[in-house]
Amino acid sequence: MSVKLATITKPGSHRAMNRVKYAPSQLQAISRMALIVQKYGGTSVGSVERIGAVADRVARFKSEGHDVVVVVSAMSGETNRLLALAKEIQANPAPRELDALLSTGEKVTTALLSMALHERDVRARSYSGNQVGILTDSAHNKARIQDIKLDTLKSELDAGGVPVVAGFQGVDVQGNVTTLGRGGSDTTAVALAAALKADECQIYTDVDGVYTTDPRMVDGARRLDHITFEEMLEMSSMGSKVLQIRSVEFAGKYKVPLRVLSSFEEGPGTLISTEEDTSMEAPVIAGIAFNRDEAKLTVIGVPDNPGMAYRILGPVGEANIEVDVILQNSRGENETDFTFTVARSDMDKAAQLLTPVVAELGAGEVLTDDHIAKVSVVGVGMRSHSGVAATMFKALADVGVNIQMISTSEIKISVIIEEKYLELAVRSLHSAFGLDTVETTA
Amino acid sequence: MSVKLATITKPGSHRAMNRVKYAPSQLQAISRMALIVQKYGGTSVGSVERIGAVADRVARFKSEGHDVVVVVSAMSGETNRLLALAKEIQANPAPRELDALLSTGEKVTTALLSMALHERDVRARSYSGNQVGILTDSAHNKARIQDIKLDTLKSELDAGGVPVVAGFQGVDVQGNVTTLGRGGSDTTAVALAAALKADECQIYTDVDGVYTTDPRMVDGARRLDHITFEEMLEMSSMGSKVLQIRSVEFAGKYKVPLRVLSSFEEGPGTLISTEEDTSMEAPVIAGIAFNRDEAKLTVIGVPDNPGMAYRILGPVGEANIEVDVILQNSRGENETDFTFTVARSDMDKAAQLLTPVVAELGAGEVLTDDHIAKVSVVGVGMRSHSGVAATMFKALADVGVNIQMISTSEIKISVIIEEKYLELAVRSLHSAFGLDTVETTA
Repeated sequence: MSVKLATITKPGSHRAMNRVKYAPSQLQAISRMALIVQKYGGTSVGSVERIGAVADRVARFKSEGHDVVVVVSAMSGETNRLLALAKEIQANPAPRELDALLSTGEKVTTALLSMALHERDVRARSYSGNQVGILTDSAHNKARIQDIKLDTLKSELDAGGVPVVAGFQGVDVQGNVTTLGRGGSDTTAVALAAALKADECQIYTDVDGVYTTDPRMVDGARRLDHITFEEMLEMSSMGSKVLQIRSVEFAGKYKVPLRVLSSFEEGPGTLISTEEDTSMEAPVIAGIAFNRDEAKLTVIGVPDNPGMAYRILGPVGEANIEVDVILQNSRGENETDFTFTVARSDMDKAAQLLTPVVAELGAGEVLTDDHIAKVSVVGVGMRSHSGVAATMFKALADVGVNIQMISTSEIKISVIIEEKYLELAVRSLHSAFGLDTVETTA
Repeated sequence: MSVKLATITKPGSHRAMNRVKYAPSQLQAISRMALIVQKYGGTSVGSVERIGAVADRVARFKSEGHDVVVVVSAMSGETNRLLALAKEIQANPAPRELDALLSTGEKVTTALLSMALHERDVRARSYSGNQVGILTDSAHNKARIQDIKLDTLKSELDAGGVPVVAGFQGVDVQGNVTTLGRGGSDTTAVALAAALKADECQIYTDVDGVYTTDPRMVDGARRLDHITFEEMLEMSSMGSKVLQIRSVEFAGKYKVPLRVLSSFEEGPGTLISTEEDTSMEAPVIAGIAFNRDEAKLTVIGVPDNPGMAYRILGPVGEANIEVDVILQNSRGENETDFTFTVARSDMDKAAQLLTPVVAELGAGEVLTDDHIAKVSVVGVGMRSHSGVAATMFKALADVGVNIQMISTSEIKISVIIEEKYLELAVRSLHSAFGLDTVETTA
């Protein structure tokens, strides 16, 4: 799914702004001698120079008295290079061999970063997933971490060193190398932070934090200092590139404070934790998320009997088509309309699958629409504040945006609207919930 | 040391010749259901196409009923690419990290070759040195194999699969990845062959065997069907690129039949084993080796007291300068001349080191000469045949080549001569010992 999300930064303008506005860094709040797990993605270690910059930052944290464990991805481009080699040989390589192949990329980075740390007189050691004892199940290409042996890590930390761990990989009980799936380095970092009971898990990436909405769409979009796990899940479940959803779930489950920061500039980033912002001025809504990659299918005149939803969505699910919003509208006495949304690229296939089902059910017809978009307001604050839905619907009505579907969760309200109104809707909601930047004087 | 050796093939002409002359392949002598360890070097797996060619060959051996274990090097260029990255970061990387880095190259090849075998419906699995249980000491960059656990390999062989093992690497008792030093994949192959009691260890390279001398120098140079370990050691100790000397020693110690073959063309290669050729027409001499990279240092007028050799060579050895031939010539009653040879690039440094020693010893002066070369005749046959030295010296005298130094071992006679006579000397010796190609009609 190609998704525009509220967590993407606008390059340039916002960076300068943040430096002024968020000067009292939350990083300074980390207690002395904290244990920090830092994860650096592919672009952050994409060249020898960037590896040097990472080493500089790690060295600084060490010199400030913190203990640091570093998790790294493969240098950007490396995983694709290896994949291309494999694909030249075999269209569908065995998962075990693909894991053996791809896992080498992260190992290269661990060794290079360790060297860069040595060059800065910082004691450091590289570790593969196997060496650090990251035990996973045997589901190659998408393995799940089962256990982490901490002896090696702890003794290196005790000795004052920086363990540099290969992300994205582990080993199963038979000694086979496994990978956690693409982007799994985030999961490695969170798992290590949880196991080590680290004070914070910092995810360094190419964006400087989580925003109230996409700054490319709304000029006044603000970087959030803080967001809860639940809010982040609602934001990122729609396809944020900032954090893997699995790592957020993982961090939430083990209550590991997670911080998203830029590896290319200084700044406090966004802290994701269990703590809600309880200050007087705490906003009810954390941000406005949206997704253009939605298409709607409506089955008209479905007999209103039990089991209908399953009979409609069963074949869709079996075809591995992910369904997002599901809605059932009563239409007549013995009939109902059944509507759901899928990714746009899946719409035609889903409609095709429904044709025999509709005939079988004696339903009417299947209507499709791929000119829709989804807008969501997200915030734990709405649990205690009534009127969020009212504010949302009024704001949309004020600018003449018609709502096609509504779907709610405990901390999120989503509406499906015509795509051409998307920007208008996001801007008015951002403003209506008081998320716009308030200009301050230095 | 840059060394021209008798084991380098001449591309082109000899290939065609060998096909005619060695048609009844010694490979066919391998018994049915043999266990063969095959090692493929960097150029043999240097591209996806070449990896495919290797897979074709392995598949053929499997289809003939043999069990095959494959050991691979990193794709050509890969180790240098990784080294260059490291050197950009640190002039002298920690040996442990260099091993962690470089060992990834072979792992990549194992996965790719396994995929290529799968594509040919051959069951195969990749293994790192760690996974296959190659236990080494902790001497990073030059580790020595201490033990090999065979469980994994054997169970894969029992299941009818082809284990594809990363060469050049192992793991120490602490779980650190080690490397055996450059070219160590040969050692891995021989060690696995020894541990598995394989019928043959085949080293595939870019030359098609061991020659009686350098075919680029002597047109009549012949590929040897067979050579003993001792002969091969005497040939390769002078710097052959065909086989690592350590792997030959290793193979000799464990009596693993070793075969050098080309991975780019079919042919029986050269078998290196303990068996001497006892046929009637067995040649006394296996080949003529030579080395241009020699420089001579002579200390004149050394007092003829005990300990002089040590006092002269001690400082040279401490400076890590390798000494080749050592000779002491009696000159007068209480004085002697002490001569030794080193690589040309080391001559000036060695002379410098000797200056204070000579003064201290009250010796005369140090003479240097870097216009010399070494020629050796090698053959186990000379143990039972007197007259080899006489034949050698006569052949050189016949063409007017003056001998400066003579050094002998049980199966080798080396002479140091003026460099400009090198080709003349090699050709006349090759002819004098009956090694020239005898033209045959098909």
